[in-house]
Amino acid sequence: MTNEFFERHRDMLMKAVEMTASRGYWSPFKEVPSPKVYGETAQKDGEAAFKARLNKKFEIDQPGAEGFVGAERSPYGFDLGIEYPKMNLDKLLPAVEAAIPGWRKAGVEGRVGICLEILSRLNKRSFEIAFSVMQTSGQAFMMAFQAGGPHAQDRGLEAVTYAYMEMSRTPEHALWEKPQGRDKPSLRMDKTFHIIPRGVALVIGCATFPTWNTYPGLFASLATGNPVVVKPHPRAILPAAITVEIAREVLKEAGQDPNIVTLLADTLEAPVSKDVALRPEVKVIDYTGSTQFGDWLEDNARQAQVYTEKAGVNSVVIDSTDNIKGMSMNLAFTVSLYSGQMCTTPQNFFIPKDGIQAGDEHLSFDDVAAAIAKGVEKMTGDPEKAWHLLGGIQSPDTLKRIEDAKALGDVVLDSKALKIEAFPDAVIRTPMLIKTDSSKRDVWGEERFGPIYFLIATENTDESIRIVEDLVEEKGAITSGIYSTDEAVLDKMEDAVIKAGVALSCNLTGGVYVNQTAAFSDYHATGANPAANASLSDAAFVANRFRVVQSRRHALPEAAE
Amino acid sequence: MTNEFFERHRDMLMKAVEMTASRGYWSPFKEVPSPKVYGETAQKDGEAAFKARLNKKFEIDQPGAEGFVGAERSPYGFDLGIEYPKMNLDKLLPAVEAAIPGWRKAGVEGRVGICLEILSRLNKRSFEIAFSVMQTSGQAFMMAFQAGGPHAQDRGLEAVTYAYMEMSRTPEHALWEKPQGRDKPSLRMDKTFHIIPRGVALVIGCATFPTWNTYPGLFASLATGNPVVVKPHPRAILPAAITVEIAREVLKEAGQDPNIVTLLADTLEAPVSKDVALRPEVKVIDYTGSTQFGDWLEDNARQAQVYTEKAGVNSVVIDSTDNIKGMSMNLAFTVSLYSGQMCTTPQNFFIPKDGIQAGDEHLSFDDVAAAIAKGVEKMTGDPEKAWHLLGGIQSPDTLKRIEDAKALGDVVLDSKALKIEAFPDAVIRTPMLIKTDSSKRDVWGEERFGPIYFLIATENTDESIRIVEDLVEEKGAITSGIYSTDEAVLDKMEDAVIKAGVALSCNLTGGVYVNQTAAFSDYHATGANPAANASLSDAAFVANRFRVVQSRRHALPEAAE
Repeated sequence: MTNEFFERHRDMLMKAVEMTASRGYWSPFKEVPSPKVYGETAQKDGEAAFKARLNKKFEIDQPGAEGFVGAERSPYGFDLGIEYPKMNLDKLLPAVEAAIPGWRKAGVEGRVGICLEILSRLNKRSFEIAFSVMQTSGQAFMMAFQAGGPHAQDRGLEAVTYAYMEMSRTPEHALWEKPQGRDKPSLRMDKTFHIIPRGVALVIGCATFPTWNTYPGLFASLATGNPVVVKPHPRAILPAAITVEIAREVLKEAGQDPNIVTLLADTLEAPVSKDVALRPEVKVIDYTGSTQFGDWLEDNARQAQVYTEKAGVNSVVIDSTDNIKGMSMNLAFTVSLYSGQMCTTPQNFFIPKDGIQAGDEHLSFDDVAAAIAKGVEKMTGDPEKAWHLLGGIQSPDTLKRIEDAKALGDVVLDSKALKIEAFPDAVIRTPMLIKTDSSKRDVWGEERFGPIYFLIATENTDESIRIVEDLVEEKGAITSGIYSTDEAVLDKMEDAVIKAGVALSCNLTGGVYVNQTAAFSDYHATGANPAANASLSDAAFVANRFRVVQSRRHALPEAAE
Repeated sequence: MTNEFFERHRDMLMKAVEMTASRGYWSPFKEVPSPKVYGETAQKDGEAAFKARLNKKFEIDQPGAEGFVGAERSPYGFDLGIEYPKMNLDKLLPAVEAAIPGWRKAGVEGRVGICLEILSRLNKRSFEIAFSVMQTSGQAFMMAFQAGGPHAQDRGLEAVTYAYMEMSRTPEHALWEKPQGRDKPSLRMDKTFHIIPRGVALVIGCATFPTWNTYPGLFASLATGNPVVVKPHPRAILPAAITVEIAREVLKEAGQDPNIVTLLADTLEAPVSKDVALRPEVKVIDYTGSTQFGDWLEDNARQAQVYTEKAGVNSVVIDSTDNIKGMSMNLAFTVSLYSGQMCTTPQNFFIPKDGIQAGDEHLSFDDVAAAIAKGVEKMTGDPEKAWHLLGGIQSPDTLKRIEDAKALGDVVLDSKALKIEAFPDAVIRTPMLIKTDSSKRDVWGEERFGPIYFLIATENTDESIRIVEDLVEEKGAITSGIYSTDEAVLDKMEDAVIKAGVALSCNLTGGVYVNQTAAFSDYHATGANPAANASLSDAAFVANRFRVVQSRRHALPEAAE
């Protein structure tokens, strides 16, 4: 069964291996939610499946379930009413640990095959997962489908691909034969190499991207032999629960212990992350969320390999452009998309106080600010259209930050609450643009997660670049951007991001945005600045999740020829 | 110049890449100290070069040198009398950090080429290095030549090879082209990927293997773009100093800043390791030595990636054999070699209290003990022969441990002091075998570094295996061994080492020893138990020493066809 899955998906895997090296465009999971791709009734069926989950117990037959827990509320204004098994760690973790030997013995192709089959089934369930992502994260439907479905699956496949490449670079057996000079027989040793896992893995998810940020760690650990406990954010459990359900189904079919993937749900009032993270059985942790908790994990969960993606402050430098309209519309889309609730959205826009050259025109600082504001207004003017881009505000904390932000500078464009027909109680806000200057580091030097943006007047572009470099080194960042028509300026920015360790997008004016990355081509985070200690995905993300144990013995003498 | 070196050594590198995957026997650096390989006068010249170093200042023109330091004494009974530049860290580290941009810009092939040229020149200087290793570590000449010369160079090459493979898996440029459906032009992005280093790297060496344990970290960091500060053990500075001298010579020839490799010498009385390890510039640390200091580094040098090889307790299980003579002589050699001053030497021999089956014969516990003791006596009976195997005792601490060990159980074979003509003041000791039982964990449950061995009576082999598994998990180990004619017992042991995470050697009776490993085939340490958090060498050892920073911009439209 096990290797049947591997054979079934071998071509996809081999193509994925090839793409990690060429890094061109490739995606095996189609991002268009089209009936032609996913089936005529896929969307309706997916929505129905999602709705059938509401106001019920989500049963998962895993050991140590004692009662139920769950309190998710949709940013679109209703309670999900779903309860998940509440786990007793003293019963769950020994059962998960007991699954290790069998999972190791499944071998590289066995485990990889099962991971690929899980991904493939997740893909078929993309609509159901999309609705569950939408109604927990607040993402608009299209984004919930793409980022929560195929793009997350791509990132999961990418992690499996790196794990496969790293594990399969060591042979299972080798004959070592050392010549001993004339007349003496060679020394001959038979060697066996075993890939062994670290132990139990834990993935702690976030509320804004409950699948996209969970799949890389989940599949990297799983493929390398570590059974995984999935601990979703208490506000976005459902997408993870469906994922776990599908994974367990595939594991069972393959004759494996389903406890190789388990769900650990909790609430904001009674969080369990710290308890589980410090358990001695837990040897690998993947975490996405606040810097505070990420730092706590790195400092305290010392028994585990800890991979973190934390907060950062992303910036764009505006120096000059030959396409002010393209720039403004690109940035307006960037800041509107999911109301800035992405770890990749730029918060700071550094603009020379004396303005910029835009083609033949000179634009003042305020002209640039107005161009971006106009773009945002255009995109968010009609609530019934705008909410498909903005989505809802995921957390009450973000709402409060928007409210507080008004006092931080001159409001160029205020954030507005939008009402829509489909979800009358939805919490939807447009972006807020605030004008300030480079001296106000207390204003723009912190991450203010949500649709809060600063247009920051600097002395000149040199200062802008210097500030971005400093800020990345101090606070971390996942992305950066620059607009300039001057190659020398672009080079200076490139030197700065190389030094600070952050990815750069230059002069984006078309259908690619600084806050979007593509699996197999773009690395997500560098692991080289405080925003993240790992990158999605590269060899370093997988190579230390397993170890190699070898055994050797004298080989039988060579057969006489 | 730079790529000239890469081209010069390309074939060797490509063969090395191939061998990491097949893991058969291969060594580009010849281990036989033969005039045919190294030149008619190589040994004499090497010895003369070593002697010319004695009682002098070892000048290295590196920034921040203020005075001199050094107090090495040969275990063969004389002071080296060499003084090395004493470094002011506040001047040295900024100069090293300043070398980063240029070293990064040398590129993957540039850096790898320089590393390969350094290794190749080290190889040519193997005799000089051998004498310097011998007269600091106390290793006998043959071992000092092999382990300190070609085998260390092999391990250095192995690290460069993994670094090359990991760095070159990401292309320098990629074109990303995403179809946008009929009638729409594709989205096209040009992407550039930069390999960036972590920062300044530090390698803290040990006294027993001053090159072998230094080269993997040195070359892994160097190849990946991190300039390296080499901080040798105060008792074994000379081999590192010669290495640094050669590296700087090659760097200069290639037009690179020589401060990419620097020496930081100190004394036992005024150690500098803690100071330098906590410096913010230091982002990568490789360390070999005591568990206490290794743990301190892991807990405190949190600004750096820390790779440690610490202490462990290695064990051999004796269950049965069909070749008692082969087993005894193999183990006698193993325990005599360098008087057990290897992190790979087994300290504990677990033997059933009722004895073992050896071919047709049943041997009592004492028979087995006597067979090993007899082997050791045979090998160490003649001092003028024995010292070429035993070498000298590196540290006064080891001498004291031997003295104290007598009280730990029944002495089956006492340690003897040997006198030799060549070095009348040499400190040479034969192995001590002590009989004890499995209840005395306080006796055998700690590492007692040096020629101190325990023959431990257990209830049966099941208990022996269980104890080894426990001991590896608790105290760590680099190696393990078993003798058994029963495949079921071998399987049980294999399961135990897989669980505990330690390499296993089965039924060694010929010219391969449990404490020896071969580069490109055997992994040294697993990184899966407390003895080491890394393995020499694998992808995990190199992949996190660098990061990838990408930049992207719209590609020019496709040329019309």
